[in-house]
Amino acid sequence: MQGAIDIPQELAALEGVLFDALPRVETVFADQLRSDLPPVDEMCEHIERYRGKMLRPTLVILCGMAANSKIDALLASDDRDQLVTNAHITSAAVCEMVHMATLVHDDVLDEAEIRRRGQTINMLKGNETSVILGDYLIASAYELCSSLNSPVPSRIVGRASAVMCTGELLQLHNRENLSLDEPTYIEILERKTAALIGAACELGALSTLGFDQSDHPITNALTDFGRSLGIAFQIQDDVLDLLGTQETVGKSVGKDLEKGKLTYPLIHHLRNIPADDAPRSLTLIQQAATGDCDPTVLEELIQAIRQTGSVEATQALAASYVQRAKNALAPIPESAGRSMLGLIADAVISRSF
Amino acid sequence: MQGAIDIPQELAALEGVLFDALPRVETVFADQLRSDLPPVDEMCEHIERYRGKMLRPTLVILCGMAANSKIDALLASDDRDQLVTNAHITSAAVCEMVHMATLVHDDVLDEAEIRRRGQTINMLKGNETSVILGDYLIASAYELCSSLNSPVPSRIVGRASAVMCTGELLQLHNRENLSLDEPTYIEILERKTAALIGAACELGALSTLGFDQSDHPITNALTDFGRSLGIAFQIQDDVLDLLGTQETVGKSVGKDLEKGKLTYPLIHHLRNIPADDAPRSLTLIQQAATGDCDPTVLEELIQAIRQTGSVEATQALAASYVQRAKNALAPIPESAGRSMLGLIADAVISRSF
Repeated sequence: MQGAIDIPQELAALEGVLFDALPRVETVFADQLRSDLPPVDEMCEHIERYRGKMLRPTLVILCGMAANSKIDALLASDDRDQLVTNAHITSAAVCEMVHMATLVHDDVLDEAEIRRRGQTINMLKGNETSVILGDYLIASAYELCSSLNSPVPSRIVGRASAVMCTGELLQLHNRENLSLDEPTYIEILERKTAALIGAACELGALSTLGFDQSDHPITNALTDFGRSLGIAFQIQDDVLDLLGTQETVGKSVGKDLEKGKLTYPLIHHLRNIPADDAPRSLTLIQQAATGDCDPTVLEELIQAIRQTGSVEATQALAASYVQRAKNALAPIPESAGRSMLGLIADAVISRSF
Repeated sequence: MQGAIDIPQELAALEGVLFDALPRVETVFADQLRSDLPPVDEMCEHIERYRGKMLRPTLVILCGMAANSKIDALLASDDRDQLVTNAHITSAAVCEMVHMATLVHDDVLDEAEIRRRGQTINMLKGNETSVILGDYLIASAYELCSSLNSPVPSRIVGRASAVMCTGELLQLHNRENLSLDEPTYIEILERKTAALIGAACELGALSTLGFDQSDHPITNALTDFGRSLGIAFQIQDDVLDLLGTQETVGKSVGKDLEKGKLTYPLIHHLRNIPADDAPRSLTLIQQAATGDCDPTVLEELIQAIRQTGSVEATQALAASYVQRAKNALAPIPESAGRSMLGLIADAVISRSF
């Protein structure tokens, strides 16, 4: 995330601690997956292609710092390394590993996709390897998490993972449901994205406060912050999927639509389109969902979405969750950590990647 | 498993305790998976078709009893219910859930299978639902495990799950490897089957002795017992896959072969066949691996396997691991629990299902 933010001078020390911490997370991550079996190491090399923005590790570290009552004094001292303990690093690696497992399993192709692409790409062993790699990541995440010497983090991560699955399932269940409503859409996001981001923030707080501090007001505040931020983050992801690379329409745009996933721009559009124009939009959506429609179909659909003000409405919805996330920070004492969390929250919806 | 064993009269009380415990395991299992979302409950109903022999829960309960120094006195008293605590029941449900997750993920079809069957079976959403259901089972297993108030069981289950994945991967890596050797075959079994069965026995012991007793000689003995038993169990599974329903050849026989998995009967056969006959066997194996060969191909192959004495050799190998499992029980004081584990060990290779 950091690349997306202009860090003001007064947060430079905190940024330094964060930048020192993230490579430690990567080391723990890689060490946990290392195996004595060459085929396992070989498989794990494929993980590189799933490398992301490290949002969850960043939030673990930052929430851990924001939960520390001595943060500003420590940042000003030579002891600032004490802000990030092994518990933070381990929790951060665990959250990234769980997240990566879901990315890998998202890549398991359904039959339609295989039939469509089977002729052109050699995908032999593709699905089986993806399933095993995802399982290996999640099992390794749990094993790593259980090294934390309290069952509480395992409970948080196990629960978040189960909720994520229910979110994926709810989404699958609503595939090609053109009357998907906003509350169900939000519930899908809460489950499939916000639960783990909330867990990352919670683990950050508990790594600082102690794993018996689940009911601490600071823990609750940071968990709420993470959950709202997670929803905003996913709404922005959905916008980018639809509009992100409009210039290169037909390339990687509209993947959600292709998989039959209705996201907020479309939900809003279908609610607000004049009755006479609705059949045309429905036709366009159905064509786009076949996955190999003419690029002009997506262009026309995006044009229609813009005309109902659905892009602005989606951005406003995302902004409302960013605001909710920032409001959740109220119980946290003012500090460089809290300021940075506010900046991260803003960055989540201003990003274009 | 129990249906396969003639229980002698002196073990009737122990059998009663086991039979009372297993339904409790099923209740905890079902409660953990229950959801407020109808699509999740609907998906979980499909789990019924994976219902098995409850081998892992049976071993958790029996090892728990065998680890109890007061077992025979308790069995003779009205307090025999004390032999099985909530920790045993929870551990048992966790092991069954992890096992079931692997069965569900094994069902994710590779591309070849989809292409072959795609015309006849409606498998829309099949792979995606299998992936999510398996993930939900494993996440729920970890969540349930973390309710045990010590990180030790989470560590054991996380580790065993990761090792299982490496076993699956090693197997996948050796697909269609006609020169697979015995040590690699055994290593695959150790990882993909024996690790979890060993963990089940370990958790049974620790649920009795306390989760800080990982180094207790009884814990080690029961873990070793489980690991050897797991190898014997999987060898028997592999025999049954190849020979189990020879009468109905072409129906469900030879699934491993169809997936390119070489198991011990074939490994032994290829090592012991006269050089002149080898090309014919290799041709038969390759034909069987296509999955829709003429039934006479499998018949001829099985005939050839019998002629090299490979069935007897496989049974002898399985029996050697049963013996190893029983030897591992030496440090366990004699009791009804230990006797029952011996009977279970014998039953693992005498079963024909």
